[in-house]
Parts: sequence; structure tokens; C-alpha cells
Amino acid sequence: MFVKKRKKQKPDAVVQQLINVVGESEVLYLKEDLISYECDGYTMSKGMPRAVVFVNNAKQVSEIVKRLNKEKIPYIARGAGTGLSGGATPFGGEVLISLVRMKKMLHVDLENRKAVVEPGYVNLKLTQSISDKGYYYAPDPSSQYACTIGGNVAENAGGAHCLKYGVTTNHILGLEIVLPSGEIVEIGEEGVPDRPGYDLLGLLTGSEGTLGIVTKITVKVLKNPEGKKTVLAYYDDINDASQAVSEIISAGIIPAALEMMDSIAIEGVESAAYPVGHPRDIAAFLLIEVDGIAAGIDAQIDEILTVCKRNNVREVKVAKDEAERGLWWANRKMGFGAMGAISPDYLVQDGVIPRTRLPEVLARISEISKKYELRIANIFHAGDGNLHPLILFDASIPGQSERASKAGSECLKACADVGGSITGEHGVGIEKSAEMRFIFSDEEMAAQTDIRAVFNPENLLNPGKLFPSPGRCVEVKQGTVGTGT
Amino acid sequence: MFVKKRKKQKPDAVVQQLINVVGESEVLYLKEDLISYECDGYTMSKGMPRAVVFVNNAKQVSEIVKRLNKEKIPYIARGAGTGLSGGATPFGGEVLISLVRMKKMLHVDLENRKAVVEPGYVNLKLTQSISDKGYYYAPDPSSQYACTIGGNVAENAGGAHCLKYGVTTNHILGLEIVLPSGEIVEIGEEGVPDRPGYDLLGLLTGSEGTLGIVTKITVKVLKNPEGKKTVLAYYDDINDASQAVSEIISAGIIPAALEMMDSIAIEGVESAAYPVGHPRDIAAFLLIEVDGIAAGIDAQIDEILTVCKRNNVREVKVAKDEAERGLWWANRKMGFGAMGAISPDYLVQDGVIPRTRLPEVLARISEISKKYELRIANIFHAGDGNLHPLILFDASIPGQSERASKAGSECLKACADVGGSITGEHGVGIEKSAEMRFIFSDEEMAAQTDIRAVFNPENLLNPGKLFPSPGRCVEVKQGTVGTGT
Repeated sequence: MFVKKRKKQKPDAVVQQLINVVGESEVLYLKEDLISYECDGYTMSKGMPRAVVFVNNAKQVSEIVKRLNKEKIPYIARGAGTGLSGGATPFGGEVLISLVRMKKMLHVDLENRKAVVEPGYVNLKLTQSISDKGYYYAPDPSSQYACTIGGNVAENAGGAHCLKYGVTTNHILGLEIVLPSGEIVEIGEEGVPDRPGYDLLGLLTGSEGTLGIVTKITVKVLKNPEGKKTVLAYYDDINDASQAVSEIISAGIIPAALEMMDSIAIEGVESAAYPVGHPRDIAAFLLIEVDGIAAGIDAQIDEILTVCKRNNVREVKVAKDEAERGLWWANRKMGFGAMGAISPDYLVQDGVIPRTRLPEVLARISEISKKYELRIANIFHAGDGNLHPLILFDASIPGQSERASKAGSECLKACADVGGSITGEHGVGIEKSAEMRFIFSDEEMAAQTDIRAVFNPENLLNPGKLFPSPGRCVEVKQGTVGTGT
Repeated sequence: MFVKKRKKQKPDAVVQQLINVVGESEVLYLKEDLISYECDGYTMSKGMPRAVVFVNNAKQVSEIVKRLNKEKIPYIARGAGTGLSGGATPFGGEVLISLVRMKKMLHVDLENRKAVVEPGYVNLKLTQSISDKGYYYAPDPSSQYACTIGGNVAENAGGAHCLKYGVTTNHILGLEIVLPSGEIVEIGEEGVPDRPGYDLLGLLTGSEGTLGIVTKITVKVLKNPEGKKTVLAYYDDINDASQAVSEIISAGIIPAALEMMDSIAIEGVESAAYPVGHPRDIAAFLLIEVDGIAAGIDAQIDEILTVCKRNNVREVKVAKDEAERGLWWANRKMGFGAMGAISPDYLVQDGVIPRTRLPEVLARISEISKKYELRIANIFHAGDGNLHPLILFDASIPGQSERASKAGSECLKACADVGGSITGEHGVGIEKSAEMRFIFSDEEMAAQTDIRAVFNPENLLNPGKLFPSPGRCVEVKQGTVGTGT
């Protein structure tokens, strides 16, 4: 194969500094190489980075950070780039510090239930590497085949099973971090029930890459549950499905997962890679999984079936084997990407509400859909009230992108108005920094940015994310597809 | 009865300011009234407060804080005063803001599994008030009959059942806080899996009253488990008991509680209010509780019995009814106080280690006991590696208090040396601020005190706690008894 030799462009002084630290092969700085780094999984905003530098260890990160500080060049840490709120998207001119080469599993200690990985280690690989010994890593974002644990820490990623097992922050025991000063610090230790001092581990987790760059992560690993059973329930009325969700939780059952999809979402997943054969004329389905001690599972499944039937289910069934269970989950986890099969573009939103307010919020989302004349699919972690409205649009039709953005923002407002929140698991990033106003007062925003200043006083690390920074504006461009959760 | 009328002492200007806010009956300022506020449950250090002011609402707290700021008078929030590390103990001259009058349950929402309480609400009352509806509040420090939920938030309190259910921070959904500026803010909302921005809720919880004064708390409540069974296992060799702990966890069982007591601790509890009739010649016993779906419990109990027997248990039995189970727990929860039955004074320590290092740390504690010629009892949450060495001494014998303090500090060093931590659940307070050096570098301490400065820039709120403040020294006095965990 003939590869055209590209005309060499001389690196500028900043790029040369990066090259001095990691070598020429580890720095991208030509425009054609940078294009694919203009955004992450959130594609409504794009910006050209100044360079991308691939690092191999914490020392290199520290050295690069120190040099960029001296030049006052902003920088952003990036993992797999699957984030859905633009946390790793440049505004323009930042240096991207890519952690994908730091992808080693460093240590596993099953007896004390923990593993130590580098930040570029892919989420799913952890479970794959310990499953033969009977263990797994719980947080399972739908992008887990690609997303990295470093990115999961930055975003405090969730997943279908966070109802029972908690989100990333509940599974992090320790972090090594390069602070914006260039200093390398370790926080957290073994799996202790409490730690002295302020909870820096919790503070760093979910800080969306604005307080430090994670270079090593100690995570909890869990013993595989003894058994697992999965129920699929089809409903003609979405209110019946919502009521069933409430009653399952009220019964004292904590399912490992309790997912809901409405009819437009079903239209999507049935048109994509893993069709299950869901009826097209239902209003919604519930996908409910129970795990734990084998002896207890059947009783819980019986109770779930009873609740489903009491709430006018059209059809309800238990997966007959692992193959069927796997297909149901593959179909569900394709959810976001599947929207590409029924719409040229879509925007994923991510709000949280108290479970009991589900019917009224769904009604409001339906009104928003009518108002903006855009279809909205709903896929959600119903058990913990985490909605994902998917706003379908066509960026090639003038005005649709803007309408989609506005509709998305109104969906979040609807969540905030019932006492909920503007993100369940995707983070704030670029996408929602304006919507932070829905839930935080000026004083609360100030307290947060003061905390950022403790770690990141020059605001060179990922500026303009999470909280609006003065003097920065977002250039909104047309959006396509993101990886899912 | 004849009560001698006390000679009225005129309040000073600061006290007068407090009286102006809450009324004369709500301020203590005479020396004889202040004596019982010289320390909390940690009695190795004492200091006389300037005054104690009883507040009824957040507005009063805010007003008092503003006035004290103006006068540059330091102040401390205090709940029931059952803390074990001196978090609510004055150095001398602080105003104690007592929250015990703010003891209302404000709201219960069982459908969304939460309750809102004032900070002075007693921990156990919450479970008592909802148990008839089938719900409970999980964190259960041994002092739960007296300690307040506000204090639990400050200390991130644990308890016997935190192995399975987590510590206080895992059960807090929202807080109303009076900041040291006097501003009243709300953080957290409904039970959302993630919250945008930095995790201030996690940061405030366990901050030992140094970042703000909690005036309202939203907690999670849990559905009662369907069933519960409790095992008691007697061992002739403490290493066998330790090995059984490891094997139970390795088997994938997460008991609700997994407690251990050694022979000196047993001597104590058998001499106190709730003797069980434990043999006096064993090395240790394990108290193991399993809860959950009824159908799964018997299988787990069978496996626990098998593990115990495999590890040379002398005798193992399952509680035959709720009365027996209750007695076993009353005996265990008396643990700390029971030391008073076998020693004039004792010092409770609180360290954490990786579970697998238990035998070597116990051996080191035994050496420390010999070195200082003081008996040390061990009561611990074995499942999560949280040790409570209880150093027995007699403060009336010159030198013993000092030796007890040194022995306690060496026990913590032993924990830190195996990768553990210096507090599991009692906090740092006054007691361990020096020991923070065992686990934090100067840079890490600076990051922590910088965070304090964001909330508490004048350091008037609980100065000298958690981290050493320059210019403050601790006056060590003789110690007696604390309430337990």
C-alpha cells in the first residue's frame, strides 16, 4: 500500500516542549491529525486542540503540566473520548493529554478485593480479566467496551447496575493524581470504611478533570453473585410501567437493574444490531434484573411478576437462558447508538427525578416534544429515576440543532423543577454548564469555584468545564452520535 | 426541696450578644454550668467554654455565627457530646453552639425512602419511629441511643452494621448548613445517583464540624430485611478467628455485621450490665449477623458454620430467638463502657487495617501492651478491618495517663504501617491531629487546610480540630469513660 508522505510542518515552541518530554512520535500537532480530537462523545460543540500528547507515566504528565503552566497554555486530560457532556472537548487551543497508552493492570489483590489500574485501562477488560476467578468490577456504563476507568473516575460514571451497586465513586479506594501544580499525590488507601480528613477521594471523583489528572486508580472488585435472573415486561400504558417500578422498590426488592424504554426507543433498538423482537405497538418495556444468593432469587422474581401483573402488564417473561439474557442486554445497551438507525442526529440528555414523579415528568417531556416538533425517545434507569431523553433531529435542516439544544435544556428544567438534578451520570462538561443555574445559587457556584481554585488556581486544567468560566464561549456545531450509557 | 439561689453573675458583652439572639434562659455562662461541657466522650483533653448557647433554628445559628465572627470569638457546634475524639471539646474560650433543642423529625417520605430531621434528633429514634412501617435507618453507632444525627454527620459515624450498609456518608441525601460566613445553604437534593459539580455533600460529611454547622439533614431510610440470623463462635486461638473472618468474606458472603472481641474485652462485657455467659478462657469470639431475603439466609448461615468449624472453632451456635440475639448485641454494644467494670480508666483507639493483616497487627498490639505495661482489650469490626484497642489504665497512678496516650498512638502507627488508617469511625478531633502525620505528607495536609479555608477562612469554627492549628496546644488531663461505638 502506498502511503503519501506528508509534508513536515515544523512544531512550534510549545509543541517542541511536549516533544522534548515524550518524543516526537508521541505528539500530534498537524491539523489533519487533530481533527478527530475536536470533540468527544458529545458532538454539539467542537474545538481544535493545539496538540495531542500521549503520555506513559505520571512523571511525564507532571513534566508536561509544569511546562504548560509556565507558558500559560490550558490543557485537558482525555481517555477514550466516549464522554457524553463534552468534558474532553477543547474550546480551541488546549493541549490534550491523552492517557490511552497508560492502559496496564498493575496489581490484583482478590483477597482484599481490589485492583490497581492505570487510567487508560478499559472498563470491561477489568471484569474480563478476573471473571474466571469469580470476580467483577461493578460500574458498567454502556460504553464499557471502550471507555476507560480514568474517564469513569472523572465523570463518576454510572451504568444499568448502579441502582444496586452504586456509581463509580462507590468503587474507588485510592487515586494517584497529578495536580495542576505538577505535584504527584496519592489519596486514599485500602478499603477503609472512613478516612481521616476531608473526603478528597470523593471530591476528585466526578470532578470532570478540573482538579487533577488521575494516573493510577485502586478500585474495589466484587465477588460474582451466585445467581442472576432477568425479567422483561411489556406495557400498553407507560403509567402502569412507572407504577410497577414504584411498587417493586416499595416491596423492599433492590434489583441489580431496573430499566425502562418507551416506544420510540424500542423502534430504535429494534432497527439496530441486536433486535429482540419486542412488539412495536407497546408503550414501554421494563427490563428487570435480580442477583444475589441463589436461594433468594426465585422469591424475588415471583414478587416482581406479581407486581407486573397487578399493573396491567401485557406480557411478562423471565429470560430462559444466558443467551436470551445476553441478547436483551445487548439490545438495551445499544440504546443510544440505535437512535442513529431512525434519525440522522440525536442529542442524549441525562436528568434525575424522584421516582414517584416519573409520570408527570414524562408528560412534560411529551409536551416539550410537541413544542419543538422533534421526536423524543426515552431510555432510562427507572429504578433510580435517571432519565435519558433522546432528542431526534436532522442537523442538515436549518434550525433543528438549535431546537434540539433548547428541547434538551427544557427537559433538564423539568427534572430540576420536581426536585431532581441535571445529570445522573454523564456529567456537566460543556453541555450543561449553563444549566447549573437551574440548581445552584450564585453563592453555591462560588463555593464550588473556590474549591476548584484550591487545586487549580490558574484554571489552566480543563477551563470552562463544569462551571462557566468568564470570557469563554461555546461554539455550537451540529451533532451526530455518541457512545452510550 | 430547697434550691439555693445562685448569685447572679453579670454576662459579659459577648454573652449578652448571645442572649440577645436566643433569650437569657438559652445561654449558660456561669462556671458551674459550664463544667459538664469541658469535654465530650473523649476525656483525655478538657477546656472550659466561654458559654453554651442553645439554638432552635438555622436563623439563630446564622445570627450567632455572624456576631461571633465580628468579635473574632471561636465557636464549636455540639450535639449529644458522645464523640470519641474530642471534636466537640473546647481548648478554652470557645462558644459552644448546642443543637440539642433542634430535635424534630421534619418529614418522612417512605415512598422515596427518605426522612428529614433536625441535627439534634437522636439516631435510634429514627428507626424506632418508622419500624412499625417496616423501615429503619442503617448507621448504628453503639451510642445510638444518645448520639444525634447531626453529630453522626460531622464524624461520619459508623457502627456494627457498616460492613454491609456503609457509614453515615452513604446514607446522607442532603444537608442544610450554616457556613462560617453565616450564610445558610442547602446541598444535595433527592436520592440521585450522581450530583453535578464537586461532591460537597461528601466533603461536609465527616468534616468534624470544621466547615459548617448542619441544621437539617435528609437521610436515606431502608426497608427492613425480610430475615436476620446471628451466629456466635468461640475460638481458642485468635488467629483461627481471624482466618475465619477472611474466609467468610472470600466466600462472597457480606454479613450485615462481623464483630470480634478478645479475652480481655470478654472479661469486661461479662462483668457489665448484659453478661451472656461467654466462656472466660477463650481467646476470642466472633459475632456474625446475616440479613436479607429470607430464602437466602439459611444457605449463608450454613456456609458460615462450615467456615467456623474448618478453622478450629471451640463452639458455634445460632441465636435461637430474638431475645437471645438481642442479648448478644446488648453485650457487644456495652463493650466500651464495660471496660469501666474492670479498669478505673480506659482509652479507646480506632484504627483500620487491610483484613488480611489482622494477625500481625494484633501481635504488635500485644507487644505494645507489654512495652507500656498496660492491658489492652480489643473489640473490633473485624469484617472491615476496623480495630478498637482499649487501653486500660489508672489515671490516679502517676505516669499511666501518659503511657496510655503513647500506647494508643503506637497502636495507630501499627495500623498506618500496614497500609491502614488512623481512624475507622471516631474521627480525628483533638485526639489524633498529631497522628495525621502518619498518613499525610505536608503537601497533603496543606491541600486539606486550603479546603478548610474555602469554607472557614478565619478558622473560627472549631479551630485546632482535625488538623493542628499553629499556636494552639492541648492540655492533657486524666480520662474516664466515653460512650461507645
